[in-house]
Amino acid sequence: MIKNIAIVGGDLRIVKLAEMLRKEDYQVKTYALEKATQIQDTKVDTLEECVKDADIVLGPLPLSTNEQLINAPFSEEKVQIDELINQIAGKTFIAGSVKQEVYEMAEDKDITIFDILKREELAVLNAISTAEGAIQIAINETPKNLHGNNVLVLGFGRIGKILSKMLDGIGAKVACEARKTTDLAWIKAYGYEPINLIELKENLNRFDIIINTIPYTLLNREMLQEVKKDALIIDLASNPGGVDKQAVKELEIKFNWALSLPGKVSPVTSAEFMKETLLNMFKEINNE
Amino acid sequence: MIKNIAIVGGDLRIVKLAEMLRKEDYQVKTYALEKATQIQDTKVDTLEECVKDADIVLGPLPLSTNEQLINAPFSEEKVQIDELINQIAGKTFIAGSVKQEVYEMAEDKDITIFDILKREELAVLNAISTAEGAIQIAINETPKNLHGNNVLVLGFGRIGKILSKMLDGIGAKVACEARKTTDLAWIKAYGYEPINLIELKENLNRFDIIINTIPYTLLNREMLQEVKKDALIIDLASNPGGVDKQAVKELEIKFNWALSLPGKVSPVTSAEFMKETLLNMFKEINNE
Amino acid sequence: MIKNIAIVGGDLRIVKLAEMLRKEDYQVKTYALEKATQIQDTKVDTLEECVKDADIVLGPLPLSTNEQLINAPFSEEKVQIDELINQIAGKTFIAGSVKQEVYEMAEDKDITIFDILKREELAVLNAISTAEGAIQIAINETPKNLHGNNVLVLGFGRIGKILSKMLDGIGAKVACEARKTTDLAWIKAYGYEPINLIELKENLNRFDIIINTIPYTLLNREMLQEVKKDALIIDLASNPGGVDKQAVKELEIKFNWALSLPGKVSPVTSAEFMKETLLNMFKEINNE
Amino acid sequence: MIKNIAIVGGDLRIVKLAEMLRKEDYQVKTYALEKATQIQDTKVDTLEECVKDADIVLGPLPLSTNEQLINAPFSEEKVQIDELINQIAGKTFIAGSVKQEVYEMAEDKDITIFDILKREELAVLNAISTAEGAIQIAINETPKNLHGNNVLVLGFGRIGKILSKMLDGIGAKVACEARKTTDLAWIKAYGYEPINLIELKENLNRFDIIINTIPYTLLNREMLQEVKKDALIIDLASNPGGVDKQAVKELEIKFNWALSLPGKVSPVTSAEFMKETLLNMFKEINNE
Repeated sequence: MIKNIAIVGGDLRIVKLAEMLRKEDYQVKTYALEKATQIQDTKVDTLEECVKDADIVLGPLPLSTNEQLINAPFSEEKVQIDELINQIAGKTFIAGSVKQEVYEMAEDKDITIFDILKREELAVLNAISTAEGAIQIAINETPKNLHGNNVLVLGFGRIGKILSKMLDGIGAKVACEARKTTDLAWIKAYGYEPINLIELKENLNRFDIIINTIPYTLLNREMLQEVKKDALIIDLASNPGGVDKQAVKELEIKFNWALSLPGKVSPVTSAEFMKETLLNMFKEINNE
Repeated sequence: MIKNIAIVGGDLRIVKLAEMLRKEDYQVKTYALEKATQIQDTKVDTLEECVKDADIVLGPLPLSTNEQLINAPFSEEKVQIDELINQIAGKTFIAGSVKQEVYEMAEDKDITIFDILKREELAVLNAISTAEGAIQIAINETPKNLHGNNVLVLGFGRIGKILSKMLDGIGAKVACEARKTTDLAWIKAYGYEPINLIELKENLNRFDIIINTIPYTLLNREMLQEVKKDALIIDLASNPGGVDKQAVKELEIKFNWALSLPGKVSPVTSAEFMKETLLNMFKEINNE
Repeated sequence: MIKNIAIVGGDLRIVKLAEMLRKEDYQVKTYALEKATQIQDTKVDTLEECVKDADIVLGPLPLSTNEQLINAPFSEEKVQIDELINQIAGKTFIAGSVKQEVYEMAEDKDITIFDILKREELAVLNAISTAEGAIQIAINETPKNLHGNNVLVLGFGRIGKILSKMLDGIGAKVACEARKTTDLAWIKAYGYEPINLIELKENLNRFDIIINTIPYTLLNREMLQEVKKDALIIDLASNPGGVDKQAVKELEIKFNWALSLPGKVSPVTSAEFMKETLLNMFKEINNE
Repeated sequence: MIKNIAIVGGDLRIVKLAEMLRKEDYQVKTYALEKATQIQDTKVDTLEECVKDADIVLGPLPLSTNEQLINAPFSEEKVQIDELINQIAGKTFIAGSVKQEVYEMAEDKDITIFDILKREELAVLNAISTAEGAIQIAINETPKNLHGNNVLVLGFGRIGKILSKMLDGIGAKVACEARKTTDLAWIKAYGYEPINLIELKENLNRFDIIINTIPYTLLNREMLQEVKKDALIIDLASNPGGVDKQAVKELEIKFNWALSLPGKVSPVTSAEFMKETLLNMFKEINNE
């Protein structure tokens, strides 16, 4: 049974997470989080002390932003990744966006590494927050209501599905673009207007709000020329995004490239989703 | 048949409205709107010329803010209310928030006055915009998602009904407070949790977001003491509102008194709703 | 406080109700219900014994079908209405569809009579059951899905509102007919297509399913001639209904006049709704 | 371009489909459908004549029920599968549930065979009809409303997803059982109560209606013993189904094994879905 958790570094979500785990009666020790006043009583003085009795070691998400030091905005400490890896031989280590080199470092130390950001349930839950953030932007940046208005969602993956449901729930007339016949059948089943990719171009000028979820430049200059001049385009796809940034600017279409919404719009819910995912991981680890 | 429309004064919504009416092939003449560049071609030089052939004279909403001059933010002209009334003898006059004195002024001049802000369909339609604005505030001002969260709506009138539907549509767990057993039955029928006013106090601490729609100080100090410390209260009720402002401040509860949302959140949709209402009024006038 | 309840006569819903009231710790005595085996232990031998200590006397819904005897399908007893009235002087009496003569009989006996079928919350709750029954008929009697299909609801009262919500929830494309501009605004606010009565005729031929809720012959021969030949018409309005029965037959349009659905489709839920309403009435009586 | 379609055999859905294809301006010839009066004008006298100019040959769904003759309920003709295969050398053949032997027969005749029942978009669309049929059964066979009632859906595949949405839309309190953490996250995202398979047993007694969609005997005797005595179980899974038939009978739980709902509940919509799928297939064939 997992009981003792060592947390090393991390941002506000990790702090919230530490609070939540403590409330659920885990023994939590933290290191490189000394500025987070809410969890002072979990603080220990050395990395060694933090991890020595731990059943699980939890690191930042992402683990590092410079491939050397772990990500620790709530600390003055500089913890080297290899230092951490050396201290946790034989243990289970959970962090986010763990690079290949770290797996290699850990190889002969009998460390089991799990990347929490690769968990699909977390991606689904985060899509809820992203969708809600997109709705807030859409209400905020248009002089029209979403209710009764024509909104186009590009892509019917995780975010596309949840966003369409919310937009429909708020009263928008929702159309979704997809490429696969199966996705188009699902779009119809869920009650939205299906738009086949091959008919997208001729349909673009019907929409006041277009929200992209596809990480591929679908809205290139040729497509953008079809978009209403007073439309709003929101791009939720991470780099390079799905919109030709240069063209959208030149065509003077209102544009918002909205990245990393979950952490911005709902950090507390994000921490809750991380906790849920973590507890799922604990159960799976226990069952092995 | 109504064909010629004189528009005298008014704000951005009236400007949008003038554009829309022109598009629907009404003959529109405007006075005291000379700074609105979009409708330059409808501009005439004198009040007399503006109204003389008009089937309908349309004034600002509200008609006046100082009981003397009509409300004309897009003009340098100073048009006296009594001057306007004198010019439109025998005509039909539509404006907003028309005071009793104006009706009296018009009495012996055979003027038929309609107050568009007293039209119930406009109030219903504006409730859509208010609800959407409230949702934007709720997403923006809390570190949690609406989705999956407990939200309490106080009152089940126009705004309460539409807001509850939207909140439910976005995935919140919605409870509505009402006093009447019939309203409580409707709340149940629509699938929200009904909370009887007499059981409100003991239930308040379950909610992360509380949105008031009742123009009566329901959330007094005693009630507010039951509210979660990290909750958000949004008050949509116009002056004096439904929340003890002093107490909410002292108790350090996050509070947003959000007034006149339709004009702020969705001026274009607001103008559309006004146009729809106006066309309804025209039909009724034609049928008389 | 209401504690002792006498129940005299009534149908299966009253039997279920008696069971429910007993479960909520009321002292229940029954008369003229001796064939209902589930509540044998509440049975007493005489009307007098049944009512003598009662805080509330509960009669059938409807009280009588012949103006003489109370409605008692679970009994061999023949209880005269005037006999009952004579026995309950000074008491509170609750029944359904109480005729004017009964009020007159009770006049000088200090009896307070409440007609539960006049309670608006019960009418709202029963509308839920009616709507569900209508959906069952619509699925059953058409070779098409409701999902994706065009359904027209005539009237936007209690049943119209709840039925439209359910049809929309199951995926139908819902239009609602109404006469008043306010209702049309509500229909739009709820996201259905509003159809003004004056434009009804020209729109009828778009619909595969038409459900009437208005107790007035709106669908006369002239209207019916516009309806699709393979459409289904469901009439939920009580006598005389809203459809010309002769014309619908001659035009060979599929037609279902569905009356009293709550008792047929969901007798248990109907009893629950009656209980809720009764408890509301008790509270109000207690507060007086 | 596909223009000439030969249709050989098939049931009512194929007849409806033939009508629809003719309406969309395809040249349709039919054989072994001579009793279908609606499509008399498409009838030809010999199999050879039917298929000779065809761009596509369309056969029954399923192709055969006895592995010898093609399925032709609207005909007196007895068409051997191998006779048909011999006649259509070099052509594209579309039918349903095509067995391995038929593919083998066709191997050296340059016939391209597509099994329409393996198309995922058709499976999604058929799930809509299945879900609607299940709702009709649920309303019909319980003395309670779905609205406000606790309904459990076992499985979150195609049918589970659409059925949950419809049940929620009609006002039921929906819980869904799933095994995978990702599915449980989706269930939460869609706003239903997620129930992990490992916690199913202890939760069963909360539900008035349980609908199974999993083709595996999940509801064995041990599970069934936990189910409420007055609950209704609907099994939508094809043979062997998901419920221990012997145990459910002995435990006297109300049970409905509802198979092949789309054809029964909505044959016309089923034909439409087949047509849509067929047109998708035509497009793909054209593009090759």
